[in-house]
Amino acid sequence: MRDAFDDQLSEMFADLAGIAGMVEVAIERATVSLMDGDASLAEAVISADAEIDAVREKVEDDAFALLSLQQPVAGDLRTVVAGLRMVTELERMGDLAVHVAKIARLRVPETAVPEDARATISRMADVARDMVQRVVQIIMDRDVEAAIALGRDDEEMDQLRRASFTELLSDSWQHGVEAAVDIALLGRYYERLADHAVSVASRVVFAVTGEFPSRDRSALPA
Amino acid sequence: MRDAFDDQLSEMFADLAGIAGMVEVAIERATVSLMDGDASLAEAVISADAEIDAVREKVEDDAFALLSLQQPVAGDLRTVVAGLRMVTELERMGDLAVHVAKIARLRVPETAVPEDARATISRMADVARDMVQRVVQIIMDRDVEAAIALGRDDEEMDQLRRASFTELLSDSWQHGVEAAVDIALLGRYYERLADHAVSVASRVVFAVTGEFPSRDRSALPA
Repeated sequence: MRDAFDDQLSEMFADLAGIAGMVEVAIERATVSLMDGDASLAEAVISADAEIDAVREKVEDDAFALLSLQQPVAGDLRTVVAGLRMVTELERMGDLAVHVAKIARLRVPETAVPEDARATISRMADVARDMVQRVVQIIMDRDVEAAIALGRDDEEMDQLRRASFTELLSDSWQHGVEAAVDIALLGRYYERLADHAVSVASRVVFAVTGEFPSRDRSALPA
Repeated sequence: MRDAFDDQLSEMFADLAGIAGMVEVAIERATVSLMDGDASLAEAVISADAEIDAVREKVEDDAFALLSLQQPVAGDLRTVVAGLRMVTELERMGDLAVHVAKIARLRVPETAVPEDARATISRMADVARDMVQRVVQIIMDRDVEAAIALGRDDEEMDQLRRASFTELLSDSWQHGVEAAVDIALLGRYYERLADHAVSVASRVVFAVTGEFPSRDRSALPA
């Protein structure tokens, strides 16, 4: 019984890591489609989102079955419930990558990001993708140390967001309102991706230790 | 035992409705602070968010206690887990109201919304607040019919969002990049508030019936 339960938990975490991996790919592709004005890559991100939703449903169904049939308590219960909440956030992260792809698609054959905004947006995308990549491993290993470290590294995204606003609100901005609105929304999407990555990592810490990293759940950008 | 469980479930739903009520107030106040450039009202929204977080923690702790001690199955289990997921979304809705208040505060003593964008933004705020008001009642009564109806009424927000983009991207827009970016982000926040309202209502349907309204969980903007 115990072994069966552990196997099922491991499968749930493998599925969660699998979704995180799909999100990472989605961010990567959405960003390339954005920078290159590549419509078919944007379409690929949009249609691949259904796969994320499918694994999400599997995780939810499995978690309910675990709760119903095994009636876990204490740490086991915490872990299953954390898994249910992580899957919601991971699915939401997939949606955010789709939002990026949709902005890309809207501007094809042009690109939404003008030359002098590319460095900042590109770096935001890298930071988001890197964080999600780390989340894949954090979920696989249920690695509390790495999860706490991820939470500490969230500052660069905030700085990039501020830098991006400074760029598009400066007197030298010559790309008009439409590009500025695109950039502001793109910045928001990448920032939310990073927020959710931190939040998923925090839930791994909670699942393993019973405490949130900072003992402050209000800091969770759920 | 059964009575105790029902009492605890009722308390959880009363707490959830309480949070939804606080979110409704937050949206109302944030919108007035936005339209009037009222810094103290914006501050009130920002500081009141801690109360939402506190009730959120209570709901989470109570739900864990229910799951651990009562080990519910079937519909009862579904209801407790739905409550846990609803509270996450409601707390997030509070954060979105705070985002609106922060844009308001940033532009004081001016207002972020120029005269010719006020009608659309104002209507978005009304739609969002009205949806949250209905959610309060839907949670209290666990009202499946009203929850399904709410999901159907989400279209006006999409139309308003498109109208808002049309306004700020038109040649006659004379308020520059900063105002356009504010409006685009405000539109996003109100739209997300409406999305979450629909999602919370869908989870009420799931808690009561075991099915999501459209049988399509991928439609949930969780």
